[in-house]
Amino acid sequence: MVVRAAVAGASGYAGGEVLRLLLAHPEVEIGTLTGNSNAGQRLGSLQPHLLPLADRILAETTPETLAGHDVVFLALPHGQSAAVAEQLGPDVLVVDMGADFRLKEAGDWEKFYGSPHAGTWPYGLPELPGGRAALEGSQRIAVPGCYPTAVSLALFPAYAAGLAENQAIIVAASGTSGAGKALKANLLGSEVMGSMSPYGVGGGHRHTPEMIQNLSAAAGEPVTVSFTPTLAPMSRGILATCSAQAKPGVTAETVRAAYEKALADEPFVHLLPEGQWPATASVQGSNAVQIQVAFDEAVGRIIAISAIDNLTKGTAGGAVQSMNIALGFPEELGLSTIGVAP
Amino acid sequence: MVVRAAVAGASGYAGGEVLRLLLAHPEVEIGTLTGNSNAGQRLGSLQPHLLPLADRILAETTPETLAGHDVVFLALPHGQSAAVAEQLGPDVLVVDMGADFRLKEAGDWEKFYGSPHAGTWPYGLPELPGGRAALEGSQRIAVPGCYPTAVSLALFPAYAAGLAENQAIIVAASGTSGAGKALKANLLGSEVMGSMSPYGVGGGHRHTPEMIQNLSAAAGEPVTVSFTPTLAPMSRGILATCSAQAKPGVTAETVRAAYEKALADEPFVHLLPEGQWPATASVQGSNAVQIQVAFDEAVGRIIAISAIDNLTKGTAGGAVQSMNIALGFPEELGLSTIGVAP
Amino acid sequence: MVVRAAVAGASGYAGGEVLRLLLAHPEVEIGTLTGNSNAGQRLGSLQPHLLPLADRILAETTPETLAGHDVVFLALPHGQSAAVAEQLGPDVLVVDMGADFRLKEAGDWEKFYGSPHAGTWPYGLPELPGGRAALEGSQRIAVPGCYPTAVSLALFPAYAAGLAENQAIIVAASGTSGAGKALKANLLGSEVMGSMSPYGVGGGHRHTPEMIQNLSAAAGEPVTVSFTPTLAPMSRGILATCSAQAKPGVTAETVRAAYEKALADEPFVHLLPEGQWPATASVQGSNAVQIQVAFDEAVGRIIAISAIDNLTKGTAGGAVQSMNIALGFPEELGLSTIGVAP
Amino acid sequence: MVVRAAVAGASGYAGGEVLRLLLAHPEVEIGTLTGNSNAGQRLGSLQPHLLPLADRILAETTPETLAGHDVVFLALPHGQSAAVAEQLGPDVLVVDMGADFRLKEAGDWEKFYGSPHAGTWPYGLPELPGGRAALEGSQRIAVPGCYPTAVSLALFPAYAAGLAENQAIIVAASGTSGAGKALKANLLGSEVMGSMSPYGVGGGHRHTPEMIQNLSAAAGEPVTVSFTPTLAPMSRGILATCSAQAKPGVTAETVRAAYEKALADEPFVHLLPEGQWPATASVQGSNAVQIQVAFDEAVGRIIAISAIDNLTKGTAGGAVQSMNIALGFPEELGLSTIGVAP
Repeated sequence: MVVRAAVAGASGYAGGEVLRLLLAHPEVEIGTLTGNSNAGQRLGSLQPHLLPLADRILAETTPETLAGHDVVFLALPHGQSAAVAEQLGPDVLVVDMGADFRLKEAGDWEKFYGSPHAGTWPYGLPELPGGRAALEGSQRIAVPGCYPTAVSLALFPAYAAGLAENQAIIVAASGTSGAGKALKANLLGSEVMGSMSPYGVGGGHRHTPEMIQNLSAAAGEPVTVSFTPTLAPMSRGILATCSAQAKPGVTAETVRAAYEKALADEPFVHLLPEGQWPATASVQGSNAVQIQVAFDEAVGRIIAISAIDNLTKGTAGGAVQSMNIALGFPEELGLSTIGVAP
Repeated sequence: MVVRAAVAGASGYAGGEVLRLLLAHPEVEIGTLTGNSNAGQRLGSLQPHLLPLADRILAETTPETLAGHDVVFLALPHGQSAAVAEQLGPDVLVVDMGADFRLKEAGDWEKFYGSPHAGTWPYGLPELPGGRAALEGSQRIAVPGCYPTAVSLALFPAYAAGLAENQAIIVAASGTSGAGKALKANLLGSEVMGSMSPYGVGGGHRHTPEMIQNLSAAAGEPVTVSFTPTLAPMSRGILATCSAQAKPGVTAETVRAAYEKALADEPFVHLLPEGQWPATASVQGSNAVQIQVAFDEAVGRIIAISAIDNLTKGTAGGAVQSMNIALGFPEELGLSTIGVAP
Repeated sequence: MVVRAAVAGASGYAGGEVLRLLLAHPEVEIGTLTGNSNAGQRLGSLQPHLLPLADRILAETTPETLAGHDVVFLALPHGQSAAVAEQLGPDVLVVDMGADFRLKEAGDWEKFYGSPHAGTWPYGLPELPGGRAALEGSQRIAVPGCYPTAVSLALFPAYAAGLAENQAIIVAASGTSGAGKALKANLLGSEVMGSMSPYGVGGGHRHTPEMIQNLSAAAGEPVTVSFTPTLAPMSRGILATCSAQAKPGVTAETVRAAYEKALADEPFVHLLPEGQWPATASVQGSNAVQIQVAFDEAVGRIIAISAIDNLTKGTAGGAVQSMNIALGFPEELGLSTIGVAP
Repeated sequence: MVVRAAVAGASGYAGGEVLRLLLAHPEVEIGTLTGNSNAGQRLGSLQPHLLPLADRILAETTPETLAGHDVVFLALPHGQSAAVAEQLGPDVLVVDMGADFRLKEAGDWEKFYGSPHAGTWPYGLPELPGGRAALEGSQRIAVPGCYPTAVSLALFPAYAAGLAENQAIIVAASGTSGAGKALKANLLGSEVMGSMSPYGVGGGHRHTPEMIQNLSAAAGEPVTVSFTPTLAPMSRGILATCSAQAKPGVTAETVRAAYEKALADEPFVHLLPEGQWPATASVQGSNAVQIQVAFDEAVGRIIAISAIDNLTKGTAGGAVQSMNIALGFPEELGLSTIGVAP
């Protein structure tokens, strides 16, 4: 069964990455590509790395251009997905790579995004408890944020096994593609090369409520999160350093056992052998996740670290993985666990 | 027809890259992996990006460990391939990613490498005139050097069409993986980040005679080469800026036409539309080559620029492409023209 | 009063940086430069950025070569400083940029460094409470580690003001020069560019007891530390993201006021205006420290972030600043608060 | 004699760099800082690395705000300097870091810049033959372009000594700060990190006529130039690889002798010992120039390579050096030959 897929927002980084992956997917045929401000331009001038699509011309994002597809990927700025999605029929699989449908609590959405809540769709992180069941047969998928993907995968085993106290403390470093292609002075190469800097410090980052939602669900009780994102001098990758106080009686062995059990059958999430640590280069361009966990006895703390490619597993790869589940394809179809390194 | 392939020197950058590509090749089964100083170690600790091979253990490089394969890739230091190759039967396809069998003139080899010449094998650059015919059915392949790949593809159309005078002047920038995994102070991250520097200036780089060999063959007359390599602060990629004085009567139109004709049917070499310039990021991790050419009327010079991934098209991708031809597989099998960008 | 300074270990990164700073110091004359494995070589081939010293020849590190100086900077591997220092008279100012004399508790030293404790010297972080007094007139200075410098300056105001609970959680990103010039595969440019990775996770990093020592002294009670260092794709800089649970009653205003008070008169430590965040590029090559602090009300946590140049304020700049105090020079003499950016 | 200096365009990279240098200049007091679109903002938010000026507020660029200074540095977009300069009296030293007054031929200006020529000022490259004399006592200085600085210093010794044929072929790699702070998609960190790409190929770069002007003057006959600039993944630095066919009879020795003679007394231009090659990191943040030259006997070509910091010697350092000469200060005052490396 070959499905026909459209991508709305094909000129940005998320749109480009989903096209890169769909080109390698044996059951997907690439249909319409849209991009409002770039409509009419050749894709080859905007995404020169997508050679097989170089001569495609971007259309405008309208119900007409998106009609006639089995799957529509939305790579649009926050707040624009709902209007597009409601014009697509219930028989079309709509995969939203924006934030609009991730949060369950309307209040969280309104507080962090400052606009009315559009609703909640099945959440595209299959590795979470119950994650796959929620996606099977679904016609709507909310792809997780890149940071929540890295953080939730690193910490859910500890919370699901009842090993961790409720406050999680997270410092994550992201490559600049996570900030998109927007023209901002702080994203210029001259500014980011050779520099590390934080942003959204003190609880203000919009991905915070999404982490709380995921970790609380895994724990079965409220989990609070202190999250500090930093910008690193690299194009791709997230390294998330996450920790939580261990509950009484926890040992290095119980922590290791919980992670081994939780991740044993995961096709994309790889718990590294003891003594080896994740590196973002190792998962570059792949849907793989590298995870390692340590127990710091001196302070009684579980420290879990994950490395993902923010554009692949953190956005477009997670989207394709969830699409595969929704459509009944093998979950790994068209996706790789092999990084482009060095 | 599935072939079984061994890789000698699997712990280095060339060996790791050929494994990355072979993992995606539908007609190759990966057999023995060897690495002398690392024999006995898990590949996962040496090449952590090759997740599906993480538990493989490196063997020593011996006739016994390499026996029983249809194809053997040699990713060994210069001068070591001949000894290994002669122990492999004539029915085994041996693909040498080192320099040992690239040069036709023993004198060139001895001058630049300082050791006796081992011989000459069919040359793995199918895009050159006569290149494919030389590889079909061959049991031995000499994979070109990374710089000669970039330079020859950029300039052969001009020389083959009789448009260029005989001296080619080339300045190329390479990512640091081109220098391999050797532990040298000038390759430390602290030294290379934020810095550009030349090396092998003045005609001394070992890839020079290989460029001369290729361009002279294309021109049908001797071509001399001035080649200056530089080290750029990136892991992968070569940008080769090549130029030659145009012969009388040459115009921008004749140059463009010659390149369009020479490259029209090439599956991996892409002549960019006028006004667009190559970028190494666009071909990262792919076997694609981006080429653009200009004619500087004020000085009567043809300027051809190519971008490749030094490890893919420049080494391991070129090796797999040539293997495909030698074994009668479709030339593009298992190879991609899609870069991992941004 | 011009003093004559020798540098033992002049071929490494710390040695090179202290020479860069001493060249700009109006009251220092540069004497003997030593480097054991490089003895006999021109400094110009080892430190090509130190143009005025290019023709200096490295001597061996002996009592004779180091004799006749007013100040001797030791930039030696851990464990080698004591033997050199005891051969220098008590009238020579010895500034150790290694770890040997930083820790007060012999047990900490033995646990983390695995060798007998050599002793404790006055600690070269003048900004800590009582820090300047300890250095005035001293003939021995233990320069702090780069991470402890960044972390202690970020958190001591919170602890000294009694605002923070005793566990500090720190994730810091360092440029690769912090790991020195040692030839290790994981420090190759090809490995570090485009990649973030952690190391020494779980309490094992040797700088941990030094942080505990500093923060406990500031707090007047034991402070425990969870410290995770990460390697960032840049040559210089440390960004330290530090947090601690706030004590009851703490508000954003009390936190801000404590930092303003603690740092008001510091010549090198700059508390940024609210809303602006540190960036390592802003302090590159300078002795300045950028600090910002936030109070995350949702989780009751103080988050303090500092940016330093690990080689300047984190090593050689701190050394010169402390030397100035010990010798009675103006503390800022020869040091800059101006970064080399972009 | 302390002079008072204003900087028009203080929020850009050239403006920031001249401020960084002036802060270290013992005879300069920094007066008004202007920036039209940023007028009214704190400099600390725009140039956070200039800590001592953090609280300065940018004024608008008007005759009134620039009045009352001994020196005015113009760091304005091309074409804006003339209007400002004509409002400043003849007794004010005006140093234009833009292109407006560099070219002698009005036709060159009009061809490459597409607007009427504003005139020609004394050219701020003292190392060229007659360069210092032209600047002494001048009240107007045209600071050279960054590429022409690197290229002219690398090649003038060969041309002035009559060793080189008239066509110079140049490929240069520049850090991204050379393209300024303009918000363009191709300058985003995500695009430039890990990538090399050319631009302005085929003779179109605006710095080409300036190189021709300098090299022709040195040669005493017309010199033509083929110039290809490339963008490198680093913030600062230019590596210029320049070559020219040698005239008959030229040898490696005559080339070396000519360079030694031409550069012997230069305080900032350093001819490296044979066998050592320039690296841009070695001159980062400094006014030094590293040069090496080779003679490729096989092709009869002189290859001269220079490394500069494009913002320092290539722009603001060259400006301060020329100011020193114009005002009768020691030429090296306030400038450094020490790079910030690694």
